[in-house]
Parts: sequence; structure tokens; C-alpha cells
Amino acid sequence: KINGDRLWDSLMEMARIGPGIAGGNNRQTLTDEDSEGRHLFARWCEDAGLSMSVDDMGNMFMRRQGSEPDLDPVYVGSHLDTQPTGGKYDGVLGVLSGLELIRTMNDLGIKTRRPIVVTNWTNEEGTRFAPAMLASGVFAGMHERDWAYDRTDAKGKKFGDELARIGWKGDEPVGDRNIHAFFELHIEQGPILEAEGKDIGVVTHGQGLWWLQITLTGKESHTGSTPMPMRKNAGLGMARITELVHTIAMSHQPMAVGAIGHADVYPNSRNVIPGKTVFTVDFRSPDREILDGMKARLEAEAPEIAKELGLEIAIEVAGHFDPVTFDEKCVTAVRNAADRLGYSHRDLISGAGHDACWINRVAPTAMVMCPCVDGLSHNEAEDISKEWATAGADVLFHAVVETAEI
Amino acid sequence: KINGDRLWDSLMEMARIGPGIAGGNNRQTLTDEDSEGRHLFARWCEDAGLSMSVDDMGNMFMRRQGSEPDLDPVYVGSHLDTQPTGGKYDGVLGVLSGLELIRTMNDLGIKTRRPIVVTNWTNEEGTRFAPAMLASGVFAGMHERDWAYDRTDAKGKKFGDELARIGWKGDEPVGDRNIHAFFELHIEQGPILEAEGKDIGVVTHGQGLWWLQITLTGKESHTGSTPMPMRKNAGLGMARITELVHTIAMSHQPMAVGAIGHADVYPNSRNVIPGKTVFTVDFRSPDREILDGMKARLEAEAPEIAKELGLEIAIEVAGHFDPVTFDEKCVTAVRNAADRLGYSHRDLISGAGHDACWINRVAPTAMVMCPCVDGLSHNEAEDISKEWATAGADVLFHAVVETAEI
Ligand SMILES: NC(=O)NCCC(=O)O
Ligand SMILES: NC(=O)NCCC(=O)O
Repeated sequence: KINGDRLWDSLMEMARIGPGIAGGNNRQTLTDEDSEGRHLFARWCEDAGLSMSVDDMGNMFMRRQGSEPDLDPVYVGSHLDTQPTGGKYDGVLGVLSGLELIRTMNDLGIKTRRPIVVTNWTNEEGTRFAPAMLASGVFAGMHERDWAYDRTDAKGKKFGDELARIGWKGDEPVGDRNIHAFFELHIEQGPILEAEGKDIGVVTHGQGLWWLQITLTGKESHTGSTPMPMRKNAGLGMARITELVHTIAMSHQPMAVGAIGHADVYPNSRNVIPGKTVFTVDFRSPDREILDGMKARLEAEAPEIAKELGLEIAIEVAGHFDPVTFDEKCVTAVRNAADRLGYSHRDLISGAGHDACWINRVAPTAMVMCPCVDGLSHNEAEDISKEWATAGADVLFHAVVETAEI
Repeated sequence: KINGDRLWDSLMEMARIGPGIAGGNNRQTLTDEDSEGRHLFARWCEDAGLSMSVDDMGNMFMRRQGSEPDLDPVYVGSHLDTQPTGGKYDGVLGVLSGLELIRTMNDLGIKTRRPIVVTNWTNEEGTRFAPAMLASGVFAGMHERDWAYDRTDAKGKKFGDELARIGWKGDEPVGDRNIHAFFELHIEQGPILEAEGKDIGVVTHGQGLWWLQITLTGKESHTGSTPMPMRKNAGLGMARITELVHTIAMSHQPMAVGAIGHADVYPNSRNVIPGKTVFTVDFRSPDREILDGMKARLEAEAPEIAKELGLEIAIEVAGHFDPVTFDEKCVTAVRNAADRLGYSHRDLISGAGHDACWINRVAPTAMVMCPCVDGLSHNEAEDISKEWATAGADVLFHAVVETAEI
């Protein structure tokens, strides 16, 4: 069993970097705080005897040698970046549990045939630079590296420039690695495990996603002196599309979800009819047909809403992944580990996207989940218990070591 | 007649300060650009022989002495601040036409019994610091000066501090002046004069306004893994209230208008259900009963929308003025001037709020309007012709000089 207290202490120490305003974290990707978190993680890994490589997307690979160094390693990890108002565990738990299982192996003198590599994937959250899971996506060949470098944040800064600026653009060409298997531990971010009193979620599938960025262009004009029939109100158009997104998602619920999290209004002045709005629709479903059907319905009906209001509309894909089926052998390794350790468990579909969803495209992959309070995440109040974290890390430890072969 | 070319040249020179991004202006109140515009105006006034006083709200008073200096002066002016994406004429035309009529009087050697004071009222637009017409409102005793000093912008900066910072906080106590009459020339900001081919609007009334700032509080959570029934989506609540505002305004149209120009979403991340939205409703009507009825209906129905979605709601008044009836004698002076000069004219209700609406509370007041292209303002594309500007300034000149008595 892993050392739950040591894992917890590391989680708390990492959470000191990039504190939020309400007890959580704001350690967004490629900020100075992200760099500081990476340095702390690198120092801990060095202390645990791991050797570091960094690729040119900033992905960190911390290697523990195997007794047969030429065998493909087993990978384990997640991400250290957070939402602007994020929690202390989303991503971080998976990275630091990877470190904890190495520390435990060191304590117990466990040797594996295969090397083990603990990873921190760059920009999982996708808030500052869309899409989410950007660097694992490039690693898996889903995006071009140079396209990723050109992603810009809200201030117009480029991903590639910011990666270089914080000093974490490595030499290794991204994707140039063979992976025997990849395991990721993550908090559930949903309410099921807690509601059913289960310790462990064995993740068999992941929902697919469409992010559709919509730009409505109307006409800025005076709120007081512009007659109602002369208005081209891009804010009203956004309101109607927000309702449409909700209606579409509700029509497939519980097999789908949908919302708009990002919305900007221009020029955002109390007495100016909005001349432009830019906002991103988030549709998800574990069923590909439903997922693509939601997108198709939006693409058909949103332009009608725009037309009726005299608005121009542009719809751009800002992120996409298909529903995922994880590797049967890896999933079985997770389920068996939970059984062996006596933790209660159930199979789960991941509601969120994860780096594991992309790595699953290039290597056998599975995920372990632990409960989180009220299913809440992407909120500074995100919370888990030390026991939940310990159980998740234990299962991860056993699945990884078994797959790396003693 | 005034010198239309000279007026136009001054308008163009002022427009060089705080240029926008699309041919208009961004010279928001109490910015460095606002200060620069004030200095240019002060220099021109000095050249025209006027003496300057500035009150502790930053209102500028440029005085031309009368042959009977103890008589209450006739005031004329408007504002030099602009919207973030504003035009070159909104406000500026009224201030620089006041200057132009002084220049014309100097050219023609006209002496009046009463002094004439050209004014620039601080923060008419109300974008950076709500409410609009802030400093004329304090002048007229509608707001406390110290309350005005405490208004904050989106970055948390205070009006009082910013006024001192740009160096335009004067010594004179605000409101300590007797006004014989006040005249303001302004672009119509609506489509009526242009559509009817009229040169001049004789403004008899002004619409009243309610600005209601609404804060909806829900719960930030993950867009992918939060089941639809567990969501508390403050963005969806804002969308529904946006539709409600539109419905309420349409039910009284053309005797009312309504929209939401300002809307902020928190934390504004693509994969976070909005936990909070803050937005401002703008309702207007020339009929007080309709105006207050719209507010009452919103206050009754918006909380129901919030409740249904599990959201908390707070509604705060961010600005208010009652419908205005301008002074009959001053209005007649404007109408007679237009007749005398041979300009076509019609009576108008102002759709927008103006400094004249507040000054009307403490002194006989009237407004002159000139057409603007497509009724468009609060847009960088706002446009007028030199002929329209000249006609408006001519009428202003005659009304002011007649009231100041030769
Ligand atoms: N796990 C997680 O929150 N990932 C961010 C990408 C997503 O929105 O699903
Ligand atoms: N004239 C003008 O645009 N004033 C700003 C205040 C308002 O919104 O009416």
C-alpha cells in the first residue's frame, strides 16, 4: 500500500503554488505559477531517483529504470495545470500519485522489468489555450505541433511563445516514444461514486465532445435612442442560442450534456446594444451518434436564430474528441487491483475529457477514478478525503506495478 | 451665422485624441486621453478670451464676460468623454459648438448683457463609472459628491481618485452656481430627423431610464461531468432574463425600449458552468408609468426565473432618471431660432439621457438636435454631415445669444 499521508502532504504543498481566491488554485497553463509547480515536481522526482526528459510541447517524463531498460515503459500521470478557479486535486492527484507509487516502490525495494515513467502533460484544462488536452493530443498525433504553438490566449499570446518564456520547451521531439501502457488516476468530477458509496471508479469509456465557438455580429447602437425594430442585438442572439443549447442537451439527457461556459460581449457597455458576441458551446455524449446529432441540430438552428435577428453568424470548431473505449486489458488490471485490495468499485463512463483519452489512441490505456464531494470540480471548493485519495493511489500502484512486471 | 468650417476643423482635431480602432473614438472619462482632450479645449477657450473655472467634479466652466457681470449667465455645452467604441460627435459637437458661437461673437463683435459659460460636464457616458451623466447629476443635487467619488470602474479604481490622478479635480465646490438658462446641442442618436429630412430637432421631452444591475449566483462546476439536473447555470439564467427584458420592451414598443448591453460571465472558461453572471438591464420610456411598470415586471419575473434554475438573484439600481419635460420658454427660443434661420424642424423626444436632463432640474433648459446617419451612435461609425453640424450650431448660437440678451 502507498503512503497516504505522504501523498496528502505533497498535494497540500503543491496547492500553495498559484493559490486561488477561495481555497482552491489558479495555476493556469504556461504561467509563472505553472513553471513553479513544475520545478517543485521535478525536485521531488529527482529526490526519488527519477531522470527527467521534457519534450518540445513541455510534457515532462520522469523515468524510473527497469531491470530490462529496453522494454517499453509503463506510463502513469496526469496534469498539474488548473482552471482559473480550479481545485487542488483535478489533475494534480494523478501526477502526485504517480510520484507516490515510485516513492513506495523505493521504500519497499520493488524492482520492475519495465521502466516506469511519471508524466505531467501540458495544458490539459484548455482554458487559456483551447482545445483542452492540447499537448497529449499533439503527442498522440491528433494535432500538429506547430498548430498548437499558434494557439492564442485571450490577450493574443501564443502557446509556443509562452512555453519558451516559462523555460519548459524541451529538446525532445513530441510523440517520439513507445508506451507499453498508460494509467491515469483522476477525481470523478461527477456525483456517482460518492452517491453510491464506492471507493473506486473503473473507467471503461469516456464521453466525446464538441466545442463550437460562435461569433454573432450585429450592430452597436444606442440602447436608448435606437427603435426596437432597428436593432441588431448580438446579445439577444447569444441568449437564444444559450437556450437552444440547453434544449438540445435536455432532449438527450442523461445521455448528453450541453452548456456555454465562455461568453464575451462587445463593447460591453451598459448603453450600447451588443454589436458582437463570442461564445463557446460545450456538447458531450458517450454516444457518437447523439454527439454528432447535437452538433448538426445546432448548426441547423442557430443560423435561423441569427437570421431572424439580422445577425451574421460564424461557427468554428474549437475542440473535438470522439467517445473513447479504454483498453480491455488495462481496464481489467484496474478492476482486479481494486478487488485484490478490497476496495468497493463500479464501472464508470468519464464525463470529462482526459489526457488518457488521447493516449488511448497510441497505447493501451485505462483510468482509475476516486469520488469527489458533491461531484464538484472546476470550482475552488472541489474536495476529496485523504482516504479516497489513498484508495485511488493504491489501485493505481497495483495496476502499474503489475503491468510493469515484477 | 457661425463658421461651419472652423467648427468642423475643431471636431476633427479633437477626434485625433483617443482614436478608436474603426475611425471613431475611445476617450473614456478620466483617462489620460480625457485629460488631453480637456487641455486642448481649455487652450482653444483661452485663445477665444474665456476664463476657466473647474469644480471638484471636474466640470469645466469657460466664461465670456457680459456687459452686466452680476446677471446669471447663460450656459451652453455638453461632454467630451466618449464610449469605448464611440463616435466623434456624441457630446463633442455640443461642447465645440458652444466654443464656436463664442468665436463667432468675437468675430462679429457681439456683446451680451449676461455672461455666457461654455461647459464640459464630466462622465456623461457612464460606461467606465455608472451612472451616466454623473457630474451634471451631482451639480443638480441628484447625487452626493462623495458618493460619486466612490463609484468604481471594472478594475476597482475610484472616480474620485482617477479625477485627481488626471489633474482635473478643481477647487470650486460643485453646484455652487446660478444658471439663467442652459442649452445643449447633441446629435439625435436616432433615425427620425434623417428619415424625415429635417435639419433640426426641437427637443421637448426626454425619455426616463432604469439601469438595473443583476447578479445571478449559481455553482461553478464541470460542463462534462455534472449531470443536467444538478446544474446551477448562471449563464442560462442570464439568457432567460435577456429574453424577458426583450419581451417586456416589445410589449410597450414604440413607447419603450429595453436591452442588456453589459454582461460578465464568471469564471468564463469553456468547460465550467457559469457560477456567476453580472449584467445591466437598460429600460427607457418617455412615459413614467410604462417605465416604472417595466421595472416592476422585471423585479417580479426575474426572481422566478432564478428560482426555477436554483440561482440566487440580487437586483440593484445602477442608474435612474424620470422622463423630462424641458422648459417651455427655452424650447420656444430654439424653435424660433430654427424658424428665423429657415431650417426645417420638428419637435422630438430625446431617446438618450443628456446632461441637459439633470440641469433642467435646477434651471430652465432646452436641447437642439441635428440628424445623424442611420440614427447610429455608440458606434465608431457614427456620422454626421458638416451641413447638419452647422445648422445645429447656428440654431444654438441664436437661442443662446437671444437668451443672453444683446
Ligand atoms: N478533466 C478535465 O476537467 N479536463 C478538461 C477537459 C474537459 O473539459 O473535459
Ligand atoms: N447621450 C448619451 O448617449 N448619453 C449617455 C447616457 C444614456 O445612455 O442615455
